[in-house]
Amino acid sequence: MWTIRTDLAVEAREIWAESAEAQTELPGVIARDKNVAGFDITTVRITDEQGARELNKPVGTYITVELDRFINREEGAFNAGSIALAQEIEELIQMEPGDSALVVGLGNSAITADAIGPMTARHTMVTRHLVDKMPEEFGMLRRVSVLESGVLGTTGMESAELIKAVTERIRPDRVIVVDALASRRFKRVCRTVQLADTGIVPGSGVGNGRMAINTETLGIPVTAIGVPTVVDAGTLAADIAEKAGSREVSRQDFENYGGDMIVTPKDIDTSVNDISKFIGYALNLAFHQGITVDDITMFLG
Amino acid sequence: MWTIRTDLAVEAREIWAESAEAQTELPGVIARDKNVAGFDITTVRITDEQGARELNKPVGTYITVELDRFINREEGAFNAGSIALAQEIEELIQMEPGDSALVVGLGNSAITADAIGPMTARHTMVTRHLVDKMPEEFGMLRRVSVLESGVLGTTGMESAELIKAVTERIRPDRVIVVDALASRRFKRVCRTVQLADTGIVPGSGVGNGRMAINTETLGIPVTAIGVPTVVDAGTLAADIAEKAGSREVSRQDFENYGGDMIVTPKDIDTSVNDISKFIGYALNLAFHQGITVDDITMFLG
Amino acid sequence: MWTIRTDLAVEAREIWAESAEAQTELPGVIARDKNVAGFDITTVRITDEQGARELNKPVGTYITVELDRFINREEGAFNAGSIALAQEIEELIQMEPGDSALVVGLGNSAITADAIGPMTARHTMVTRHLVDKMPEEFGMLRRVSVLESGVLGTTGMESAELIKAVTERIRPDRVIVVDALASRRFKRVCRTVQLADTGIVPGSGVGNGRMAINTETLGIPVTAIGVPTVVDAGTLAADIAEKAGSREVSRQDFENYGGDMIVTPKDIDTSVNDISKFIGYALNLAFHQGITVDDITMFLG
Amino acid sequence: MWTIRTDLAVEAREIWAESAEAQTELPGVIARDKNVAGFDITTVRITDEQGARELNKPVGTYITVELDRFINREEGAFNAGSIALAQEIEELIQMEPGDSALVVGLGNSAITADAIGPMTARHTMVTRHLVDKMPEEFGMLRRVSVLESGVLGTTGMESAELIKAVTERIRPDRVIVVDALASRRFKRVCRTVQLADTGIVPGSGVGNGRMAINTETLGIPVTAIGVPTVVDAGTLAADIAEKAGSREVSRQDFENYGGDMIVTPKDIDTSVNDISKFIGYALNLAFHQGITVDDITMFLG
Repeated sequence: MWTIRTDLAVEAREIWAESAEAQTELPGVIARDKNVAGFDITTVRITDEQGARELNKPVGTYITVELDRFINREEGAFNAGSIALAQEIEELIQMEPGDSALVVGLGNSAITADAIGPMTARHTMVTRHLVDKMPEEFGMLRRVSVLESGVLGTTGMESAELIKAVTERIRPDRVIVVDALASRRFKRVCRTVQLADTGIVPGSGVGNGRMAINTETLGIPVTAIGVPTVVDAGTLAADIAEKAGSREVSRQDFENYGGDMIVTPKDIDTSVNDISKFIGYALNLAFHQGITVDDITMFLG
Repeated sequence: MWTIRTDLAVEAREIWAESAEAQTELPGVIARDKNVAGFDITTVRITDEQGARELNKPVGTYITVELDRFINREEGAFNAGSIALAQEIEELIQMEPGDSALVVGLGNSAITADAIGPMTARHTMVTRHLVDKMPEEFGMLRRVSVLESGVLGTTGMESAELIKAVTERIRPDRVIVVDALASRRFKRVCRTVQLADTGIVPGSGVGNGRMAINTETLGIPVTAIGVPTVVDAGTLAADIAEKAGSREVSRQDFENYGGDMIVTPKDIDTSVNDISKFIGYALNLAFHQGITVDDITMFLG
Repeated sequence: MWTIRTDLAVEAREIWAESAEAQTELPGVIARDKNVAGFDITTVRITDEQGARELNKPVGTYITVELDRFINREEGAFNAGSIALAQEIEELIQMEPGDSALVVGLGNSAITADAIGPMTARHTMVTRHLVDKMPEEFGMLRRVSVLESGVLGTTGMESAELIKAVTERIRPDRVIVVDALASRRFKRVCRTVQLADTGIVPGSGVGNGRMAINTETLGIPVTAIGVPTVVDAGTLAADIAEKAGSREVSRQDFENYGGDMIVTPKDIDTSVNDISKFIGYALNLAFHQGITVDDITMFLG
Repeated sequence: MWTIRTDLAVEAREIWAESAEAQTELPGVIARDKNVAGFDITTVRITDEQGARELNKPVGTYITVELDRFINREEGAFNAGSIALAQEIEELIQMEPGDSALVVGLGNSAITADAIGPMTARHTMVTRHLVDKMPEEFGMLRRVSVLESGVLGTTGMESAELIKAVTERIRPDRVIVVDALASRRFKRVCRTVQLADTGIVPGSGVGNGRMAINTETLGIPVTAIGVPTVVDAGTLAADIAEKAGSREVSRQDFENYGGDMIVTPKDIDTSVNDISKFIGYALNLAFHQGITVDDITMFLG
């Protein structure tokens, strides 16, 4: 059998649990749940190499916020949810007062399912130049710059290469990369945000040995923010076949389905829009003390 | 069991053949294949009510053109393919020299998988006002008008209602409706165009009893041009489960997957763009005698 | 000399005042100013044919709301301004409780300076089908439908022709047409909304004898909502030349400048976006009793 | 009086000629005209500091190609014009067979008048990664990478800063920056392309002391490609006032008009689209030996 593809630590843990023969403890992994303002938040900490091996993810902290209240358009959910997400971001990135940040939108803005990164970038308040040039007016804000790194096919450069070039020049204290992910479960697609202090390997599911974007490669703490926008079709096919009682289906059978298909919600165009704005607002709230959702709307126009 | 959802007559016939116990003839249905300039073209004629019942489609002619040469970007495929498609359209719509046409783009342009109709509309040469006002310059063209009918949620009107209002006023001799379809087979998604002289029931797969857009409701010959952009996820799940050897899977099991998921190609944004242009050019070639692909490019800018 | 082009009654009155030899009264025209929540509002009533001749506009009521507070992004200006505009709309259109409305976005959405109409249409709550199908849930709302009428070059149909076809079929009690206008003064461009109960002649400045969209042609009360997005370049040239002390400049001189130029704000893309949303929200507040700005955001997503 | 703003050397020379008392020679400037395939091409060489002072432009070569044939949609003009422009580019940039290039789209893609750079970037064939990974298939192409540098307000970084970071990392042999310009004459707006081997100072007309993007700052030969998309409104006002016979108009008078206005063609959305594609194709033809317009269309999709 092959590893079912998921970019979410919370799902990797689920898959482990399903395959574990007895209800044994997963060594090297600590998880806890909470609910903030109606939003379910799960933190999975992979504490050692054994946990990393079992879940096929690097050692680090992974926080999953479920967006159902927001997606269902419950009253006040945008504000409450973006504040809750901002708190999780703040806690994870641990910035000092004068620290600066670079927000990188990964992915191809021309492909809806890949546009979470660039669209979040457009909802992020760009303040670096304002703080530098008008400190009396903007000095209370952190210096934030924004990069849409494009994809190899549109730039000819690996995202990691481009980000490294920029960070070496402008030397931010933190890098936040925002990207679209793949989930195993359709119910999580466009319904979940994952924060991770491990950075990211772009397009990692494809197994193409891309250069990682993390603290090791950049020399700066890197936080990854990801949203699953697709179920890998091969993963879906495996799930269905298993449910249908078959364990005989070969990898080849599935690749016939999963080759270049993606499984997305019907309303993906709207969801990607909404969630990008939600994350952008949460980032702004996390970066800048004392600002409100209305301040951000005023700033961004 | 339930009917697998497909909007393509060629697939409905395939499904019938798969389920037919013996290699019997399908009564009331005539099919023939040909190849024009490297493009495979299949014509399925449903000739009587028995055929209509078996294939769950109205009596009429359905022509499927496979776009592989074009999608694979083979040299000259845009020109050769749009000319081949234009010939099929011409033969099906049977216009007299002075006849006018209304091209209607069905669907929601803000949703990629639903945007084939509106995007084709934008590649159609709008000539009605030019022929009327400058007959000496444009009199050799047919009078073509274009309508993007939107969807119920963006207009508050059924597409059929809006089209009927417009046709009663401007009285075209032919109506051509262009829409996105659902296919059963992933290999046909964004790879096939279907022409049909039966008109269309918008969103018909959903079984919501919408008003049809056809000769009966409009009083004018209606040709439907459709491109499958999605596989219904429930259909995909059924296919996979069957392949996996199970026949026990209940409808409910699948609806858990298919609820509001769609299965699309990864490159759907590009494909919908390209195919819309392809169909628009074919329509222009079919409407106007003696014009070339270059003339159209010049006209549309 | 020739008439300086303006679509705003408030400017037509200004021009009259400038050219009037003595500080005489303008007969057949009544004007009054007020300020609501910081927004300057001017009402110009043309009461008879003499006034209509002098201002070169039909008899009727023209209300101008100045958007400076909103454009300057003052705190709370979106909410307060859209409520103030809604009140003016309500008073002008005079709907009974069960009345329905059709909102028409005029203009070409692909040209920024012409996109006010279609973009406002996209911020209008479409409720006709919801009230009809789910009266227990949506029965408290008015039935609103929305049409983007395109332009002659993209549809082959006059907007008036298309609107007449639709109103004859769905028979709304009110028609509201939203369009981009030309102003004489740059300071009003993207800074002003004009309401008028006189309807509109699309592209009227060009003197091309288009069919009007008004109560007379449609048989239904028509309200026009317009926003100047351009200064006609010929008008600007005339203004400057006059300021420069010359009265000798011929029409021909100016046409060399004004041929196909427009004068717009640098930030027109953002402004058209913002103002369209502003008007859409005001329309929603005017149509539906007891709803709030937050309700609209929730509805529109 | 003040300097009339123009980014075109050909206009700077015109202005000098207008103000020159006698028909004297302009020292330090050599100009020549030619016509290639119906396209007028003017080369202005500023050969020394005196010429640079007189024309207020750095020493270097400026080539202007007039696009009328293309804009008027004459038959074959896209192909012939892009080939003619490619020849001028080739001659100016002087690349050796194995040389690589970085194409930078300057400007804000969300503002039509500023989008020439980013839109040209999207019509440029990105080949760096292909040549590196599949040399046997793509080895005959030059290695080209592409960067959309955004603007200070959307990134927080000066374009020059970002470009320097990238060039230091990927070390291209040539940098080509593409940007929107301001012209003095409306007739040149969206009708002209200027090539210059002097690089560029982004937003230089505004006099805000931005960091230059040129051979001196980057250490690599920099070619600038610019298209005027606006007339500065203050410049227009000065022109008109002069024509109207006034020389008394003060700078202040004009700033009242020119503050944040731009003067553009009515069809700017279409023109920016078309010209960006035209330049992109010319760049591709200049970079890669033996490819045709059709090859590019096939590659770009």
